[in-house]
Amino acid sequence: MSQNERKISLVVIRRLPRYYRYLGDLLAQNIRRISSKDLSVRMNVTASQIRQDLNCFGGFGQQGYGYNVEELYEQIGIILGLRDAHNAIIVGAGHLGHALANHGGFAKRGFRVNALFDVDAGKIGSEINGIPVRSMDDLESFIRETNTDIAILAVTKANTKEVTDRVIAAGVKGLLNFSYVDIDVPDDVVVENVHLSDSLMTLSYQLREKKQNQ
Amino acid sequence: MSQNERKISLVVIRRLPRYYRYLGDLLAQNIRRISSKDLSVRMNVTASQIRQDLNCFGGFGQQGYGYNVEELYEQIGIILGLRDAHNAIIVGAGHLGHALANHGGFAKRGFRVNALFDVDAGKIGSEINGIPVRSMDDLESFIRETNTDIAILAVTKANTKEVTDRVIAAGVKGLLNFSYVDIDVPDDVVVENVHLSDSLMTLSYQLREKKQNQ
Repeated sequence: MSQNERKISLVVIRRLPRYYRYLGDLLAQNIRRISSKDLSVRMNVTASQIRQDLNCFGGFGQQGYGYNVEELYEQIGIILGLRDAHNAIIVGAGHLGHALANHGGFAKRGFRVNALFDVDAGKIGSEINGIPVRSMDDLESFIRETNTDIAILAVTKANTKEVTDRVIAAGVKGLLNFSYVDIDVPDDVVVENVHLSDSLMTLSYQLREKKQNQ
Repeated sequence: MSQNERKISLVVIRRLPRYYRYLGDLLAQNIRRISSKDLSVRMNVTASQIRQDLNCFGGFGQQGYGYNVEELYEQIGIILGLRDAHNAIIVGAGHLGHALANHGGFAKRGFRVNALFDVDAGKIGSEINGIPVRSMDDLESFIRETNTDIAILAVTKANTKEVTDRVIAAGVKGLLNFSYVDIDVPDDVVVENVHLSDSLMTLSYQLREKKQNQ
């Protein structure tokens, strides 16, 4: 953390990607300036929430003038580390790995997915969305040669621990984990767990709350 | 919301599925009682955070005695609406829909996925993980006949709006949206957006922070 930045709560950080997406959409529409009020209508959050979140970064907005969309987009991009080069791999070329390889959003955010890895000889040597599927035997050497810092785990629960240990030993520093098991990593490695049923449970809570409010 | 429950912040709600998973694992291991300290070690969060979160629900724990795992699991299940019956469908039987249909976690949490829907004649009539793939022509009638309350959208960005409007018109009240576009819904409908690249961006932020702290 540079001295110019205050420590920002992870709760706010988790909201930044959504700001980043909306600001990117505004830029694509050639909208250069936006008030917290207009942004709040588009994003369906309160203007006060927006001001509070974005003031964490020193306050880009000017009273009565609004935010400079491009500057804010760039600043959030820097804060999120999207201006750093990220080399990523996907481990597991099943349906989930396939869907992730087809996901256009990763490259757009600066994450280069350079390979998928699988044990299935029928898949090794093929390409998904232009990304080669490689043998698990080449996992460590590929990570080292390409300076891969991110591994996206689309493997089964049973294989998660072994794959985690292998990619970390080879130098991976960040894991995006889809395998529905919480994993232990050393202090210099970060994990972001994607638990798809957690989203369904949050949805279920909100459904119940709506029903009770009616 | 019943009068016995206080309004709980969505931030806390979003943490409940993780408690629910861990408590379920404890039950499976036949562990019947756990202190906030032991749970904090397992979950890698502070004991004070755990007490604070779980006290939102009236405080199940007893000083020096720990939590009753089964009771806490049941209570959180009720709060999350997992004891209500949920009938779900997946719209889109591509790789993502396929991966979601294979996801064992949904049924385990009480979400019955009764059908997938697709336009591809080659897929219609087949089964994925025992779940039939049906024609999009039958979408509305199926939703009405089976009292489907949740639709999981695994369709393209371009098709999202049309599919959203159709499922809501037929009676769906909750949407799990994987299509990378924020959608507008009426007041009595809830949406949970799953933006996979948001998780990568949060990971990227944490990678950058670790690097700067070293």
